Amino acid sequence: MTTAVGLPSAVLSAHTLLVPALHRWTARLGGHLSTTCGYQLGLCTADGAPTGTVGGKLIRPVFTLLCAAATGADPAGVVPAAVAVELLHNASLVHDDIMDGDRERRHRPTLWARFGVPAAILAGDALIALAFEALATSAPVADVAHLATTLRLLARGQEDDLRFERLARVGVAESTDMIVGKTGVLLGAACRLGVTRPDWQPRFEAFGTHLGVAFQLADDLLGIWGDPAVTGKPAGADLRAHKQSAPVVAALAADVPAARELARLYATPLSEADVARASALVEEAGGRAATEAEAARRLDLAWSHLEDLDLDPTAHTHLRTLATSVVDRDH
Amino acid sequence: MTTAVGLPSAVLSAHTLLVPALHRWTARLGGHLSTTCGYQLGLCTADGAPTGTVGGKLIRPVFTLLCAAATGADPAGVVPAAVAVELLHNASLVHDDIMDGDRERRHRPTLWARFGVPAAILAGDALIALAFEALATSAPVADVAHLATTLRLLARGQEDDLRFERLARVGVAESTDMIVGKTGVLLGAACRLGVTRPDWQPRFEAFGTHLGVAFQLADDLLGIWGDPAVTGKPAGADLRAHKQSAPVVAALAADVPAARELARLYATPLSEADVARASALVEEAGGRAATEAEAARRLDLAWSHLEDLDLDPTAHTHLRTLATSVVDRDH
Repeated sequence: MTTAVGLPSAVLSAHTLLVPALHRWTARLGGHLSTTCGYQLGLCTADGAPTGTVGGKLIRPVFTLLCAAATGADPAGVVPAAVAVELLHNASLVHDDIMDGDRERRHRPTLWARFGVPAAILAGDALIALAFEALATSAPVADVAHLATTLRLLARGQEDDLRFERLARVGVAESTDMIVGKTGVLLGAACRLGVTRPDWQPRFEAFGTHLGVAFQLADDLLGIWGDPAVTGKPAGADLRAHKQSAPVVAALAADVPAARELARLYATPLSEADVARASALVEEAGGRAATEAEAARRLDLAWSHLEDLDLDPTAHTHLRTLATSVVDRDH
Repeated sequence: MTTAVGLPSAVLSAHTLLVPALHRWTARLGGHLSTTCGYQLGLCTADGAPTGTVGGKLIRPVFTLLCAAATGADPAGVVPAAVAVELLHNASLVHDDIMDGDRERRHRPTLWARFGVPAAILAGDALIALAFEALATSAPVADVAHLATTLRLLARGQEDDLRFERLARVGVAESTDMIVGKTGVLLGAACRLGVTRPDWQPRFEAFGTHLGVAFQLADDLLGIWGDPAVTGKPAGADLRAHKQSAPVVAALAADVPAARELARLYATPLSEADVARASALVEEAGGRAATEAEAARRLDLAWSHLEDLDLDPTAHTHLRTLATSVVDRDH
């Protein structure tokens, strides 16, 4: 079942466990909420017809299952925890899309764009409820407390993100804190909740948190230099939206002429030519290199936390392949 | 310390336990979220200055403490559970206010009206996170699972409420289900979570659920016949908003001429004279009497679930006074 790369079969068998569980949990909602939440997860169309698949790549819950396997546990035992993480992730996507005014996700209208803001607020709340229900009916209460802390930190990270949009300049440290809050803590929780040994939980959490940061930095790099044909977004999308993404923050923090020109450019609406120029300036001021270096550093740091643990070799290989693929990717 | 009525001192001593705990938990959020969540709870002004008090009457968490006392337990032990219930209640108020477009609550602008929709969505999420954190760090995991189910049912109740607004006619049974979901389950949880004996928990939950329904029916009666000077709302406020509140639903279900005239009237925008006429028609069609009778029945039903339990007499008296006061009130 394991291919040369090891990844597809591991992810595929994880999906075999996860997708039916996601179906079961959203069905529990009943009424229109099963449809709106199912639509968000890609389990059904806007009319409620089953798609026979799922929307995202389920990266976070796959990590939960792989971490369980790495510690020698049966991944089937942590399916509720994996489901909880995926539901919480989707809840934050649903609410963030409203706040950010984003109208499209995964090539479909976002939940609020399709069903309206009230339905989307409610669907997010319902997904949070299901996440806690899934976890609390299967895991120790300390794990549930950890998921609650995770949700609190996600809210804090999103608040920082919204605040940064109104600032001309964001500090590198502040920006990193925000990335930890928005992406790190959730992947940290995904990895931690796959592990039952209390002494190993903090190490898997640290592993996942650093990996999540690396993942977000890779995303930020794609937001500027990603191939439009692969990412599905226009080149320089994040620049056009004046986002304070990691490469921009790093570039603006540099004391070089390119940084000053970038700051002047970023203070005004950008034409297509300006976007190309801004992209070149971010690179010239060192923003791209600094972000690539930090992503690589975070990936190393992630692994340092698992270094001396006696892990299942097959699961360890899958984990390593998956971790590398989420950081070193083109979409 | 106990007055003749017994209520004020019991509620007052409950507040002494609850208010500092609410302060502590919202402070944990940090940043702007401490302010927005503190504002919602009435702990601080919009600028973050402490008000030295709290916004609502804390009815739900007071029930949690009184139920603990009734079973002979120390109320101090269930403060985190009481806080969790109050935080979850406020989370649902914050999100419902956005969905309903309500701009004022407790004589102040609602959170979204004051800070914008994104800040209000986030504050609601943060309050949910805190609620689960408070409970999961102090109670058995089964209690946390119950809180999660409560949040799921709250979302379902609010969905029904939003859907009913678009319908010309709502069935009495459907309307009751919605009231159970929106108000019953949360007071049910408030009472259940105050009790540690597993065999008594379902009985206190049933007590609180029926009481919550009675509470909502009383609210619906005030929404039509409440004294504007006392409620702070114009007379017939719910009729003017074409709400499908319990008296209206009961009146429209009757097979009498007044019901048919009411249905015709409710299909159009209402002038001041129409509001007065609608109010008279709801009463003539039996909507007021039916709702009053149902509220009384629910109050009796609530007590029937605690009937044969050996409860602390003082706490029992406080509980009875408080239960009666929330149903038989003028504001």
